[in-house]
Amino acid sequence: MDQELERIADIVAARVREHIGSAGPVTQSCVLDCTQCGQCVLKLERDVRAIKSTGAVRVSAAAGLEGAPAPDLAGLIDHTLLKADATREEVEKLCEEARKYTFASVCVNSANVARAKAMLRGAPVMVCAVVGFPLGAMSPSAKAFEAREAVRAGAQEIDMVINIGALKDGDYALVAEDISRVVAAAAPAKVKVIIETALLDEEQKVAACTLSKLAGAHFVKTSTGFSTSGATVGDVALMRRVVGGALGVKASGGVRSAEDVKNMVAAGATRVGASASVAIVTGKQGTSKY
Amino acid sequence: MDQELERIADIVAARVREHIGSAGPVTQSCVLDCTQCGQCVLKLERDVRAIKSTGAVRVSAAAGLEGAPAPDLAGLIDHTLLKADATREEVEKLCEEARKYTFASVCVNSANVARAKAMLRGAPVMVCAVVGFPLGAMSPSAKAFEAREAVRAGAQEIDMVINIGALKDGDYALVAEDISRVVAAAAPAKVKVIIETALLDEEQKVAACTLSKLAGAHFVKTSTGFSTSGATVGDVALMRRVVGGALGVKASGGVRSAEDVKNMVAAGATRVGASASVAIVTGKQGTSKY
Repeated sequence: MDQELERIADIVAARVREHIGSAGPVTQSCVLDCTQCGQCVLKLERDVRAIKSTGAVRVSAAAGLEGAPAPDLAGLIDHTLLKADATREEVEKLCEEARKYTFASVCVNSANVARAKAMLRGAPVMVCAVVGFPLGAMSPSAKAFEAREAVRAGAQEIDMVINIGALKDGDYALVAEDISRVVAAAAPAKVKVIIETALLDEEQKVAACTLSKLAGAHFVKTSTGFSTSGATVGDVALMRRVVGGALGVKASGGVRSAEDVKNMVAAGATRVGASASVAIVTGKQGTSKY
Repeated sequence: MDQELERIADIVAARVREHIGSAGPVTQSCVLDCTQCGQCVLKLERDVRAIKSTGAVRVSAAAGLEGAPAPDLAGLIDHTLLKADATREEVEKLCEEARKYTFASVCVNSANVARAKAMLRGAPVMVCAVVGFPLGAMSPSAKAFEAREAVRAGAQEIDMVINIGALKDGDYALVAEDISRVVAAAAPAKVKVIIETALLDEEQKVAACTLSKLAGAHFVKTSTGFSTSGATVGDVALMRRVVGGALGVKASGGVRSAEDVKNMVAAGATRVGASASVAIVTGKQGTSKY
């Protein structure tokens, strides 16, 4: 199984390199590759610090991880409100809850970044903006522009949706360009790449994670919460195996309880997206979809 | 009832004028206002021509219209493919069908505009791109940038989603700015404003149509097809009453048969969005959602 994954990842990487040459974003992110010896805290201290700075409370090792869940769930959670008709009052409530429970971030549509930033002044809670959301079918430059605007308005993290149609077409050069343009435009903000697992087969999931890593993204993320289904433990474990220890993995869509969060972390997630975050940290069962 | 609509529209218009002054987009679109005498073909010949040029086969008069449906349904239809994972092959099939049946346009995500334009070279079929789709919760400048990019890639029509949260907050200045920025960026392409009726109450629907008209848009459109429900005859009739005869009205979401199209046209629609377009013009019942 792992050999098969490596084979697919190698094919994807080779095809991207053919298109964009060795001077592209591939080179930039290759320094993060390692042989997964499990000593990354020693050997890749700077990268581990970078991951930690994004809010992760642990850095997962490669395949087969089965560590205990983190004691402080709140710091793992992007507290999320992405519905089309979110009002000012709802965004403000989201931020108040995030401040109260010290979630990793609030995750909002890009139109709401400035308001969230103002609400969270002085709080140890980031603002995370979605970009190209939830369909991902915009041009690379439109996504890059939206990302830059969101960062200028105060976003410290960008959750972008991959170009799913291009991925299905095998147009890996376009998928990689799409991600690397957003990574460049968003810097110094971190970029999570939403691969929308519900719409992909296994080979496409591996390709999406490989391309995200090659293009310099900081996280891969399972789902928008607006497609046919959300995160599964199996997908999180697969994504962790493909990206290794250098990138974060965010599980999102359908995460409603502390048990769900713990299962995702055990599978390799370093961040979780949820709208039922308050129910999760207070030990209740959430009911909302995302 | 009509007095109540006019009262709401007047309040909305007054509040927008307070914010943006008489030199804003309000002035620009006021030349399209008339007293709805029913003689618009004579009195507003240029505007009627403009509406006709967008693909409409008839120009509806104001409230209570009950004319016979147009004989040629194809020219009323935006043949639509907006799912996140639309492949190259599916976009090409959409364009082949549009060419074969001479639909008004193909309606695609902005990432697919260039391909559709190339496929439709020489055909009397426009390319229509959605912008800020389907949530509408981006900044005005991000939507304007995406619209400009789509027009540069070949789009002749832009279907943008209104900022629904701002509308619900009563932040009419932001809603109007959002639309007028896209109208300016998209010119000479026509702009349809998707108000997402499923999420609005009656007053909000009236406000959304009034703001679209004030901001210089060319059409109002009911739905994205990605929300809780699509177009209804009642909503189309309401929208037509509010915008009068100078703007187009597009019914979209859940339109699956020739009967549906005829009902929408009878209620005042001058354009219809559908993915079941081939079934509609060949007299079959379509099954796909949008």
